[in-house]
Amino acid sequence: MSLELSSSHDPRPIGIFDSGIGGVSVLNCFAEKFPGENFIYCGDTARLPYGNKSPETIQRYCEQILDFLLQQNVKMVVVACNTASTQIRTPIYKGIPVIEMISSGVNELMKKKSSPTSQTLLLATRSTILSKSYQNKIQSVAPSTQLASIACPLFVPLVEEGLLDHRMTDEAMNLYFSNHPALVQKNISSVILGCTHYPFLKPSLEKYFATQGLHQIHFVDCGLGAVEAFTQNHNVKKNNGSQGKVKICLTDHSDYFHQILQKLARFKIDSVETVQL
Amino acid sequence: MSLELSSSHDPRPIGIFDSGIGGVSVLNCFAEKFPGENFIYCGDTARLPYGNKSPETIQRYCEQILDFLLQQNVKMVVVACNTASTQIRTPIYKGIPVIEMISSGVNELMKKKSSPTSQTLLLATRSTILSKSYQNKIQSVAPSTQLASIACPLFVPLVEEGLLDHRMTDEAMNLYFSNHPALVQKNISSVILGCTHYPFLKPSLEKYFATQGLHQIHFVDCGLGAVEAFTQNHNVKKNNGSQGKVKICLTDHSDYFHQILQKLARFKIDSVETVQL
Repeated sequence: MSLELSSSHDPRPIGIFDSGIGGVSVLNCFAEKFPGENFIYCGDTARLPYGNKSPETIQRYCEQILDFLLQQNVKMVVVACNTASTQIRTPIYKGIPVIEMISSGVNELMKKKSSPTSQTLLLATRSTILSKSYQNKIQSVAPSTQLASIACPLFVPLVEEGLLDHRMTDEAMNLYFSNHPALVQKNISSVILGCTHYPFLKPSLEKYFATQGLHQIHFVDCGLGAVEAFTQNHNVKKNNGSQGKVKICLTDHSDYFHQILQKLARFKIDSVETVQL
Repeated sequence: MSLELSSSHDPRPIGIFDSGIGGVSVLNCFAEKFPGENFIYCGDTARLPYGNKSPETIQRYCEQILDFLLQQNVKMVVVACNTASTQIRTPIYKGIPVIEMISSGVNELMKKKSSPTSQTLLLATRSTILSKSYQNKIQSVAPSTQLASIACPLFVPLVEEGLLDHRMTDEAMNLYFSNHPALVQKNISSVILGCTHYPFLKPSLEKYFATQGLHQIHFVDCGLGAVEAFTQNHNVKKNNGSQGKVKICLTDHSDYFHQILQKLARFKIDSVETVQL
């Protein structure tokens, strides 16, 4: 039986990419759920962050990384960066399925019914918010949703400095959230973590919102939505129990990134390579 | 007389480049001192920041930008980024003089005699500190200097968010400086602002150091050192009083960068272009 399952399992790796190391939160979700899969993670550390870049530049970089992953013979690609996901137009790229974060996040959001008067809060980079990708997608599936959005650009460098629970992170939350009407009105039911760095801040965010009298908020982790999209649509077979391999490809490799990677990863890293795109 | 001066003035622009917008602090110094010069500022906003990237990647990017500026017929180049400056090996690139920040900073540092027991503090990015460029240069000109260094990676995004005087900036200073032996011993005479973003934080830094009982510190602005290097070595003639032009070239142009640029620039911007390197 295990042999049959093993033989029906497509051993090609799943490609996952991000501008940097935020997408590790998505790889954490995948590696935990599908430990038998092989993964190639590409972090565009030479050109990060994408969050304040123009759509044209982001699109060009995405295509370069997609082409690189296709050369690595991946069976599918997860775009583990919300800003990059805003530039993904189709669910198939040169014959390979592509799962992006916006649809994954919106599907995850929709799993929990919220009251018609409560608000959904989108936290994301400037580029992601300006693209209106979340706004349009949510409008198309649940037009009555009341959506507020807040750009939180400093969350990315704070996560990259490992300051997941620190006074600076609290001050950043104060800067972005205090006096925001959605928080003043205290009627938020869901918060979309619309950048793959943000799930690392979930405990701090929960704590902050609790101090504002906002408890039991549904924090939407797009990585979990992507795992579900993969399970539902890609006919995944269980493997024979053997441990898959995780290969990390960085467009720039410095000791600093390696250190942060080790801190954030909840999986075993088999190899780290530097690649030029 | 003014005609004679005018005819002897080389009208080709001065090229200034940085990974992003930090180099605007250097352009501020130059434009203030030499209002008649023409400037081309190149900000590699598509690939910023350089501060955590590897030496090889930074070197590759620097050469691309130097070649771009040479195509623009510049008469000289100012490398207005300390991290990039660590990868500049010679004062001439393909026949054009190049002024970099490390020598400029060290020259500026040496203008003020410090007591033999007092310390010099270098604030810079991780890459700049790891390169040991400042350490080696200072060692070669003043070997008895006691130099301590602190990497302050979050200062760059804080400046880019315009948070020049904010509680988050204070918290970042606490994070980097509190308990540091040099500050505890209170014997710092000079602080090198070893990243071109940092001069924008000078008032906040002065305030912070004053609260630590450290007054009358010599804050070393590399841009001023570069102006002096230009004046001394490049036989600059006064022009005939006409206003020079400032052209900004960004490898990625978003409204956000334009906004921050307007906020930090103390000169009139004549044109902004997006270029691909």
